[in-house]
Amino acid sequence: MPHRRSAFFVSDRTGITAESLGHTLLTQFETAEFKRETIPFIDTPDKAGEVSRRIAERAQSDHHRPLVFLSIIDPGVRKAIEVDDCALVIDLFDSFISTLEQELGQHASRAAGKSHGITNEKTYHHRIDAVNFSLNHDDGVKPSDLAEADVILVGVSRSGKTPTCLYLALQYGIRAANYPLTPEDFGKPILPKLLLPHRHKLFGLTITPDRLVQIRSERRPNSTYASLDNCRFEVKEAEAMMRQQGVTFISTTHKSIEEIASTIIHSARLAKRF
Amino acid sequence: MPHRRSAFFVSDRTGITAESLGHTLLTQFETAEFKRETIPFIDTPDKAGEVSRRIAERAQSDHHRPLVFLSIIDPGVRKAIEVDDCALVIDLFDSFISTLEQELGQHASRAAGKSHGITNEKTYHHRIDAVNFSLNHDDGVKPSDLAEADVILVGVSRSGKTPTCLYLALQYGIRAANYPLTPEDFGKPILPKLLLPHRHKLFGLTITPDRLVQIRSERRPNSTYASLDNCRFEVKEAEAMMRQQGVTFISTTHKSIEEIASTIIHSARLAKRF
Repeated sequence: MPHRRSAFFVSDRTGITAESLGHTLLTQFETAEFKRETIPFIDTPDKAGEVSRRIAERAQSDHHRPLVFLSIIDPGVRKAIEVDDCALVIDLFDSFISTLEQELGQHASRAAGKSHGITNEKTYHHRIDAVNFSLNHDDGVKPSDLAEADVILVGVSRSGKTPTCLYLALQYGIRAANYPLTPEDFGKPILPKLLLPHRHKLFGLTITPDRLVQIRSERRPNSTYASLDNCRFEVKEAEAMMRQQGVTFISTTHKSIEEIASTIIHSARLAKRF
Repeated sequence: MPHRRSAFFVSDRTGITAESLGHTLLTQFETAEFKRETIPFIDTPDKAGEVSRRIAERAQSDHHRPLVFLSIIDPGVRKAIEVDDCALVIDLFDSFISTLEQELGQHASRAAGKSHGITNEKTYHHRIDAVNFSLNHDDGVKPSDLAEADVILVGVSRSGKTPTCLYLALQYGIRAANYPLTPEDFGKPILPKLLLPHRHKLFGLTITPDRLVQIRSERRPNSTYASLDNCRFEVKEAEAMMRQQGVTFISTTHKSIEEIASTIIHSARLAKRF
């Protein structure tokens, strides 16, 4: 049986950056198992001392050195993390900052909280605004909404439009509207009328009929809506329409929300509002 | 005038990890300005060659070496990024992976796409399920919803509950319900009846009256709802109730969604469903 290592993600702020890179690295070790723990908001030497003791205790009880992914900017706090004897420290900040200082010919400010905090009220406002946009306009589509949108996701019901819109809004402040293609839209080789003035903003999502049956069945088991025949029909018609109208589309079947969102941003050249 | 450096975030997948750490590092250089560009899905040597040419061209036109934050796992693709002469490369993966290999006594699989992809259908399902939970139960609160929730956010209208619920769902698969405290709930020293069976799951959000006026005024300008007197009253009553009932609460006024979410997860010891 493989032993389980402890992996700590220790940060002066949310820990999101340390987790993100830490997970990427750890998933490379397929046979290893990790007890993962995020310790955010370690922003004083006292808290750092406390964390050091916890890690040292864990090293003892595990009989293995914990892995510590560290993202701490303030040198005083960083110094108070004293675990070098009992843990492997991966220092995500210090490893690169002096190289950057040298390259840019200036000193880093070494002030915490510049990322994932409200550094810019305007950007923050963009995000909340985009979330509200996406929440208020999910399903009931009005022409004015489409005019205000940065991008309009089209696709059959349950192809992934809503979570993608929310993710684009929350992460990137992008106003994404959502236009569901329904059986009424099919059978004619043209775009739904509401969409015509905005064809340059359209981006399509599609999905395999099999997967669509699964997802729809969870909501409405044994319905026509969720039947394989109907799902096949809707997907076929939606894809034919998008292809004919030159709407770029991607399959969400094997993609995570992050992958779908990144693909759309990149392909539609959308500006992120950080 | 400070010159603007180009900063590229190049990844074999979404680029989220490279961006996240890259931004943290760059925000440390306050007087510098950066032209930031994310280039995701660089997963073949051909694409990597193309990126290398773009970076080399930029180096020429900028008259400064671009910064390249690199997260590429496949060694063949990594090798095809040949910019060492003309750019500063910060290799987020290679910098740490051999240290980890040595510590763990095993080789990294060096297979891309393990993070931010659908590696685990079940976790992915948790997230979508949590998003639907949060969307379906925003505002109209039913007792059954509260029973199913992992955490119940309480607070006055526009204190940040909805975006936080969505963020918890999308990022961490946490089912967060949302219970708005309204003037009807005030004036008595007890919790709203629906919440009583779930007091251990409650987490409060508050906000300064001034900020609340701003936010509410955008939705309903010149209303009683958005007036300073009313906002002061609601915030005071809500805080008094939470304090008296022993509900932990935090102020969202100067916090980003990421910070609010991390604080809740940490403080309420919620399990992330990655």
